[in-house]
Amino acid sequence: MARESIKVGLLGFGTVGAGAVQSLQENAELIRKRVGVPVIIKSVADIDWSRPRSVELAPEQRTEDAQAVINDPEIDIVIEAIGGVGVARDLVMAALEHGKHVVTSNKELIAKHGEELFELADRKSLDLSFEGSVGGGIPILRPLKESLAGDRIRRIMGIVNGTTNYILTKMTREGREYAEVLEEAQQRGYAEKPPTSDVEGHDAAYKICILASIAFNTRVNIDDVYREGISRMSAQDIAYAGQLGYVAKLLAIAADTSDGVDVRVHPTFVPLDHPLAAVSDVFNAVFVEGSSVGEVMFYGRGAGSRPTGSAVMGDVIETARNILHGATGRVACTCFERKPLRPIERIETRYYIRCEVGDKPGVLAKIAAVFGEEGVSLSQVLQQAGRGDIAEIVWVTHMTPEHQVRESLERIQRLDDVRAIKNWVRVEGG
Amino acid sequence: MARESIKVGLLGFGTVGAGAVQSLQENAELIRKRVGVPVIIKSVADIDWSRPRSVELAPEQRTEDAQAVINDPEIDIVIEAIGGVGVARDLVMAALEHGKHVVTSNKELIAKHGEELFELADRKSLDLSFEGSVGGGIPILRPLKESLAGDRIRRIMGIVNGTTNYILTKMTREGREYAEVLEEAQQRGYAEKPPTSDVEGHDAAYKICILASIAFNTRVNIDDVYREGISRMSAQDIAYAGQLGYVAKLLAIAADTSDGVDVRVHPTFVPLDHPLAAVSDVFNAVFVEGSSVGEVMFYGRGAGSRPTGSAVMGDVIETARNILHGATGRVACTCFERKPLRPIERIETRYYIRCEVGDKPGVLAKIAAVFGEEGVSLSQVLQQAGRGDIAEIVWVTHMTPEHQVRESLERIQRLDDVRAIKNWVRVEGG
Repeated sequence: MARESIKVGLLGFGTVGAGAVQSLQENAELIRKRVGVPVIIKSVADIDWSRPRSVELAPEQRTEDAQAVINDPEIDIVIEAIGGVGVARDLVMAALEHGKHVVTSNKELIAKHGEELFELADRKSLDLSFEGSVGGGIPILRPLKESLAGDRIRRIMGIVNGTTNYILTKMTREGREYAEVLEEAQQRGYAEKPPTSDVEGHDAAYKICILASIAFNTRVNIDDVYREGISRMSAQDIAYAGQLGYVAKLLAIAADTSDGVDVRVHPTFVPLDHPLAAVSDVFNAVFVEGSSVGEVMFYGRGAGSRPTGSAVMGDVIETARNILHGATGRVACTCFERKPLRPIERIETRYYIRCEVGDKPGVLAKIAAVFGEEGVSLSQVLQQAGRGDIAEIVWVTHMTPEHQVRESLERIQRLDDVRAIKNWVRVEGG
Repeated sequence: MARESIKVGLLGFGTVGAGAVQSLQENAELIRKRVGVPVIIKSVADIDWSRPRSVELAPEQRTEDAQAVINDPEIDIVIEAIGGVGVARDLVMAALEHGKHVVTSNKELIAKHGEELFELADRKSLDLSFEGSVGGGIPILRPLKESLAGDRIRRIMGIVNGTTNYILTKMTREGREYAEVLEEAQQRGYAEKPPTSDVEGHDAAYKICILASIAFNTRVNIDDVYREGISRMSAQDIAYAGQLGYVAKLLAIAADTSDGVDVRVHPTFVPLDHPLAAVSDVFNAVFVEGSSVGEVMFYGRGAGSRPTGSAVMGDVIETARNILHGATGRVACTCFERKPLRPIERIETRYYIRCEVGDKPGVLAKIAAVFGEEGVSLSQVLQQAGRGDIAEIVWVTHMTPEHQVRESLERIQRLDDVRAIKNWVRVEGG
């Protein structure tokens, strides 16, 4: 029997939920034409209806009973917009059990519970879509699964957290320190209190976990993602990087190598002429290297009610089309490989290293000798007189296995005239 | 009955065809897992088997008989990689008539004959895919049709021709003139002889025609696309633009306005801090503005055997998935609207205008008076002494209807001390 409409239930009416409803309300007629039948929000469940929202709902659309939404036999698609992994996980599992297709933008949920969710969705031939979980409104997951399906993806580098990109952009442009810029960002509502999830890289780790799983067709465990936040970036490091031709970004990186899959989040220096270098403020971008396609990049607003709502509605429409064509489960879970993880010590990249040394003859030579003995080859060096008898030396290495750099630094910090290794930062995208 | 494989026939074994075959050969096992069954190139038709190719085919795969490929009942999907609109059109029509799904990267074919091709494909519930026709390997058409399907697209601005972007990048970096850089590009194989299709904007016009049709759900006729090439860009204009904070790009633009759809290709000055400004050399990028998603950009290599082959294979895989799920025709032709075109005189944008004038008091005032009378408001002005008694004046206007600029320029060129209006260029993306 031909379907007369597709009915949607929404769980959680916060920022993302309201954005999705707003897109659907504004574009209802356009979406009807694009899908073939109307797409209708039948019920919206939230526990707090007292907060003001940017969009209006009819009284019969509102409920406090999420379970009733999941149980409603008329509802085809459930949008999860609650966030977190407690209630959200239980409700998504229950929705799938009840035969509902699910759309979510919950990165933590997919990164932590993806395996059980996809297993259930696949078993029941249901669509489970999550485009909004990475890069807000930027189309990236579906292009990876579909448009680039003929290609072997070798590497992904993403600026996938707007808060940290805003902070690093401010630090770079204004030469200011991390703590000061963070406080300002919190006052302006660009950073949360506490800011841990963003500034310590947890948010980015969830996202690269999802990207790597799709790109390399292997399940990446969130606990296996190497993670460093931006709190140790200083104005001085960023200034040196600028002199050497680099800009600071918190990159989420995933690479598929002969030695295993390498997935990590850390502050990174990127050459100024790399496409990621121009991605500033709260913008996000995902840079993908494929063996056929070469380099492609996807850029846009990585968060916010309307952009993420756009991604959610894109998923709803694709699910609706699949329902109408009896083709749900068309692109099932793509994690059909079991690739080993490569530990951080085994990665190979370039490194920026800054040392504070006694300003005496021969120090540079002693340090260079250690690098030489450890097989670390240097491509750039910058020496600057400091206060009194202190000088600073900055190096950038050629491609080097990380364990060689770590071993060098351990030896160097024990040298007599070396006061401190002030910082070291990976350099990517050369 | 479960399908054991998906069989593909390829028409034309040139650059794109070889790229597609190479992707499939290299990634056969990966593609089998992603699709569920093997995807096999059964036959390849070409009229000239004497040319050397980068990939090997088995003798039984080769044929000179395109019709036999189309008639082969075992073949599910036909890839058209012949180019042009004569034989290619006839063969694609015939393939659809024979019930074959079609994948092509032929922009001219889709721009000129899209209507009849889609009409036939839709009638027979066949997939007709053409991701590679715009932006080479960059996923852009499928994201527009699927990921952004919940959004109303307002505007698209694309750098969609690598040859002209290469030429303009060279002119900008090296301060050289068009003719000289073009000749060098031809010698290096970056530009064809004759270069007309690229440098006069025909290639970009086909692409924006396709993009606009998808984004705005209305058929755009290629003859309605306003088109100017880059041959009138001078090193002097590019230098002035740089002083004023702009860079020269050949932009393909489409906007959906209350006053009609506006589709055009012309040299454009783009602010240096716009994401498109950083897209250099042969790279392409498509910048999309949606009412929900805000600004997104898709970047990568817009041409070449491997990138375009990647797009073709992505389409083949999506078609294969649809075949296996009985869901072909899942996203049919999306041109369900009939929107009027807005003529170029009615567009509204900003303008760079360069005049050569007699270096006398009062000239600037006289010209400014004309602009004022015609309602053209100015935002930037630059006056430079020239040789002898000649000076140059450069303006950038605020947003102005184009007919007002044209009327002003007609009056200005008749003023006594105005020697010539040397150039005027639209400014977008501010």
